[in-house]
Amino acid sequence: MRFEMRKGDDLHLHLRTGEMLRTVLPHTTRQFKRAVIMPNVTVKGRKYTGVLDRYDMAVYRDEILASRDDIGFEPLMTIQIVEKTTPDMVRDAKAAGAIAGKVYPRGMTTNSENGVYDYEAIYPTLTAMQECGMLVLFHGESPDPDLFCLDREMKFLKILKDVAKTFPRLKIMMEHVTTAKAIECVAELGSNVAATITVHHLFLTLNDVIGDKLEPHHFCKPVAKRPDDRAMLITAAMGGNPKFFLGTDSAPHLKGAKECASGCAGVYTAPVATPLLLELFEQHNAMDKLEDFCSGFGADFYGLPRNKETISLVKETWKVPPICGGVVPFRAGKEISWQME
Amino acid sequence: MRFEMRKGDDLHLHLRTGEMLRTVLPHTTRQFKRAVIMPNVTVKGRKYTGVLDRYDMAVYRDEILASRDDIGFEPLMTIQIVEKTTPDMVRDAKAAGAIAGKVYPRGMTTNSENGVYDYEAIYPTLTAMQECGMLVLFHGESPDPDLFCLDREMKFLKILKDVAKTFPRLKIMMEHVTTAKAIECVAELGSNVAATITVHHLFLTLNDVIGDKLEPHHFCKPVAKRPDDRAMLITAAMGGNPKFFLGTDSAPHLKGAKECASGCAGVYTAPVATPLLLELFEQHNAMDKLEDFCSGFGADFYGLPRNKETISLVKETWKVPPICGGVVPFRAGKEISWQME
Repeated sequence: MRFEMRKGDDLHLHLRTGEMLRTVLPHTTRQFKRAVIMPNVTVKGRKYTGVLDRYDMAVYRDEILASRDDIGFEPLMTIQIVEKTTPDMVRDAKAAGAIAGKVYPRGMTTNSENGVYDYEAIYPTLTAMQECGMLVLFHGESPDPDLFCLDREMKFLKILKDVAKTFPRLKIMMEHVTTAKAIECVAELGSNVAATITVHHLFLTLNDVIGDKLEPHHFCKPVAKRPDDRAMLITAAMGGNPKFFLGTDSAPHLKGAKECASGCAGVYTAPVATPLLLELFEQHNAMDKLEDFCSGFGADFYGLPRNKETISLVKETWKVPPICGGVVPFRAGKEISWQME
Repeated sequence: MRFEMRKGDDLHLHLRTGEMLRTVLPHTTRQFKRAVIMPNVTVKGRKYTGVLDRYDMAVYRDEILASRDDIGFEPLMTIQIVEKTTPDMVRDAKAAGAIAGKVYPRGMTTNSENGVYDYEAIYPTLTAMQECGMLVLFHGESPDPDLFCLDREMKFLKILKDVAKTFPRLKIMMEHVTTAKAIECVAELGSNVAATITVHHLFLTLNDVIGDKLEPHHFCKPVAKRPDDRAMLITAAMGGNPKFFLGTDSAPHLKGAKECASGCAGVYTAPVATPLLLELFEQHNAMDKLEDFCSGFGADFYGLPRNKETISLVKETWKVPPICGGVVPFRAGKEISWQME
């Protein structure tokens, strides 16, 4: 059996830099024409972490372009919005090609020590983003360090609602939603608010992280939640609502940075993303919904033309390698019934 | 400052076998006169896991006695109750000195693959235990593999209530309670039901496992829960209710078995147990409650005389070693304000 669809966009991707970038990028370019590139990296020659302005962005984009195996792949660049980001920095980044600004809650995930704690402090920046047509991408968890880990996404929804109300013309992404409550909230808010759903959150619950042995390769932020939450994510991904689309949040960390005394958060799904999604959508008799989820709704929300190229998958079982370039991929050593042609 | 109290009993301890046993035992003997020894080990010369009868128990007890650095230390031996355990096996073990039988829910923790799934299947065994005066020790989590990990203890309470009602003269321990609901349930049941509280559950919440980076040395079963649950455990430990007392569940695993792709559950608290407890009780102005918690209520419930020896601690800050015999102890590298004299 063969399945062909429009080539998709990964609306949330970690590519890292240097050797890791060169290792992971081909997995993405094979499946996706474009990807929104996360800015929580240390750019070549910088002593700080984060793509913070147009200059950092230009250096990082050049490195990505030089690392491409496929010149058809287009990185959609972002800058990180921190409390010190100014409206001028935003306008300059937009003029230099930034599609979005990413907001991390301080200290809540990889390389987010410079993230935002006081969201009203970035309102002038959000005003400038609204005016110049840049999207804002929220890692949707409250930065309150005292909050119980499983409540952080729910507590962020108040911030999301406030921003959506204050900036009705700003395009707002709630990234990697993990709870039924977040799905409901995004669905109820205006058409300027949408959400990405990752591959791994469609498969994992907290049981897959801490329910049996401890599984560091299933550990990510936000952490996977309850079975009911996962069921709601599956419903949203296959439900045909244009507010919900794919952003893999594929996040490579070397094996040793996961299997250690203080393990990094992130699941590396790039090598398996589309085959796994097709397997899941097929199980739910929703293969006809996959193209919109991967290759339609995201482009529409970002205001980009849908891609013209196509990709094909064939129904032939393959075994995911135990390791790819030092990184343990999602479903390592397991079989998947579809593969890229 | 100096603090003296009656030498205590650790009512729940993992000692392992062989080299690991010889490494970990001295930490316990220094602080505790007696300990209830968990049976989920592979006894020397056996091809199966579990101290399943009097013969396994005799071999394991001999190994512990031969490994003691302090001949005053007394191991209180247990056998594991599985669905195949017969009333005769229980009576034989009791005659050979077993103080209790331990019930693991199938597959829910280290070496529990042979654990119980159908609790009514062990009712004949529990009848024999009630008659011969052996305690039953429950790892209090439901064995239903589909249950959400954070709900498993709560779902076990129904089983606990059923057993308590059916066997009013059986002494029943709910081990290592982690939730406010379990504390309330044990408090409400008859005087034949009590609960152990570990050292680590008095300090940890789930945030310490998955809230920041992934911390395998804080990963245990049952997993640590919410801040409200921890607060309730502290209240119970310091509240003077004789139903709640110390069982450390100190569980050594080699560093590599924790920091890996599929990490073992268990926190190794033996090297720090009493000093940490004293620090915590002092912070809560409850130093006068520590002796009952460590050295009084447990012995009473087990029907043992309280110990006559004393131990002393001095208020001198020390740093916990990063590793003890290949095992990373709780609070490795951190300072504790009290130490054993």
